Amino acid sequence: MGDPEPPDPARIDLATRLAETARTTVLGYFRGELGDTDKPDATPVTRADRGAEEAMRAIIADAFPDDGIIGEEFGTTQPDARHVWVLDPIDGTKQFITGKPAFGSLIALLREGRAVLGVIEMPALAERWVGIAGRGTEHCDARGRRSVRTRACTDLRRASFCLTGPDTFDTPRRRAALDRLRAAVRVTVYGGDCHNYGLLVSGFCDLVADGGMSTYDYAALVPIVEGAGGVITDFAGNALTQGPADVLAAGDPALHVAALRAMGG
Amino acid sequence: MGDPEPPDPARIDLATRLAETARTTVLGYFRGELGDTDKPDATPVTRADRGAEEAMRAIIADAFPDDGIIGEEFGTTQPDARHVWVLDPIDGTKQFITGKPAFGSLIALLREGRAVLGVIEMPALAERWVGIAGRGTEHCDARGRRSVRTRACTDLRRASFCLTGPDTFDTPRRRAALDRLRAAVRVTVYGGDCHNYGLLVSGFCDLVADGGMSTYDYAALVPIVEGAGGVITDFAGNALTQGPADVLAAGDPALHVAALRAMGG
Repeated sequence: MGDPEPPDPARIDLATRLAETARTTVLGYFRGELGDTDKPDATPVTRADRGAEEAMRAIIADAFPDDGIIGEEFGTTQPDARHVWVLDPIDGTKQFITGKPAFGSLIALLREGRAVLGVIEMPALAERWVGIAGRGTEHCDARGRRSVRTRACTDLRRASFCLTGPDTFDTPRRRAALDRLRAAVRVTVYGGDCHNYGLLVSGFCDLVADGGMSTYDYAALVPIVEGAGGVITDFAGNALTQGPADVLAAGDPALHVAALRAMGG
Repeated sequence: MGDPEPPDPARIDLATRLAETARTTVLGYFRGELGDTDKPDATPVTRADRGAEEAMRAIIADAFPDDGIIGEEFGTTQPDARHVWVLDPIDGTKQFITGKPAFGSLIALLREGRAVLGVIEMPALAERWVGIAGRGTEHCDARGRRSVRTRACTDLRRASFCLTGPDTFDTPRRRAALDRLRAAVRVTVYGGDCHNYGLLVSGFCDLVADGGMSTYDYAALVPIVEGAGGVITDFAGNALTQGPADVLAAGDPALHVAALRAMGG
């Protein structure tokens, strides 16, 4: 396929503005008043989710009115546009509602259907990963901005494996794959949602897997993982395009092959 | 039993100094060079753990040379002293080694075998919970210090349940108890280690459970949970004293009863 060109500078700048907007909006609701759990539509997490997506949609519509948008909260507009933004204001809503800080905001830019830019924004942790096709992946925090690369690890027996939790492995086939992978690795760590993929590309863990993801859960992860030297596919080793998918990411391409083999039994 | 007297002011001050020492030492190793995973004794997490405990032991020995110490890394000294400090420099080592920030440092003070002070220090999250017998529980972060109370939630079907992960539920009996509790609650959130107990006392979740804990894992949690109006026991409803235990904490005493019943089948 060849390495795609990076997106235009104006859209790269826009992605940063979207991340900052999501962070500000979402943080305004984090650990706030807890709402009435009987009325899910009125919960702070719902208001944060919808408020952040509305704000991002308005910014996109103002800057690039012809671009399409796929949003977790407000659906799809202009999906056949050359450029389509994919927005998930709060990835990790269970963390958000329990005061856990490792929830994230995900922003992706598809060009002709291919993810050429991804952002993992961590509002409560004050860190961000940005992956841009042809330019690699960067991590930004209070100490600055730097390029990141995954670490080498070819042996499952030495691998650290992070997953949000077992509950998305909710079919017998998925559960069997998870059990085989857990048995093969050195250490399994639970929790984290999109943050795990940031830790992977910064070289702090070796494998991440999540069952039952949607386009807005993984679109941003693809350029981030690939731009850092990692591999991200579905559980059969296929490239992620759009629609529901089980996602496996590895920092080391050889480990990805070994993990797929272990999960297959 | 009656509510015990708080510890003397000098030991309360000392607990804060210990927490600050643990934070500084441990953060110096967090997300640092990753070490040689073939030599566990030389890993950054081991050096952070041992370095923080050595520093805390030196401070205690200087201030109260007759006090006992139970430490995760360096064992027990003077266990029959009236005052015994219980230290766990890094609770959540799997999080620490994978760059996840919700690991904590735990400090407890036992007086005649009873935990009368507990600290959950979160070095990478810049927050801390302190529970003092007879005085309640406080949360401190960049925005200041304030008393905290658990929230009301009497119905399992509306409860949020946090656990580090399923792997400490590693006997058929523990696994069955976990599966029954997961089936009964509204939402289950994975990850977190000691941070979950802080979130419980601040009213962000309703239940926390961890199998196979040791004295240094739970001693600090007891005054923190009880001081905020919650209940913490083993899986049979017994008070936590010393030694291995499966731990269940609830923010609402009525929910604790319901959770024990659900786990028992």
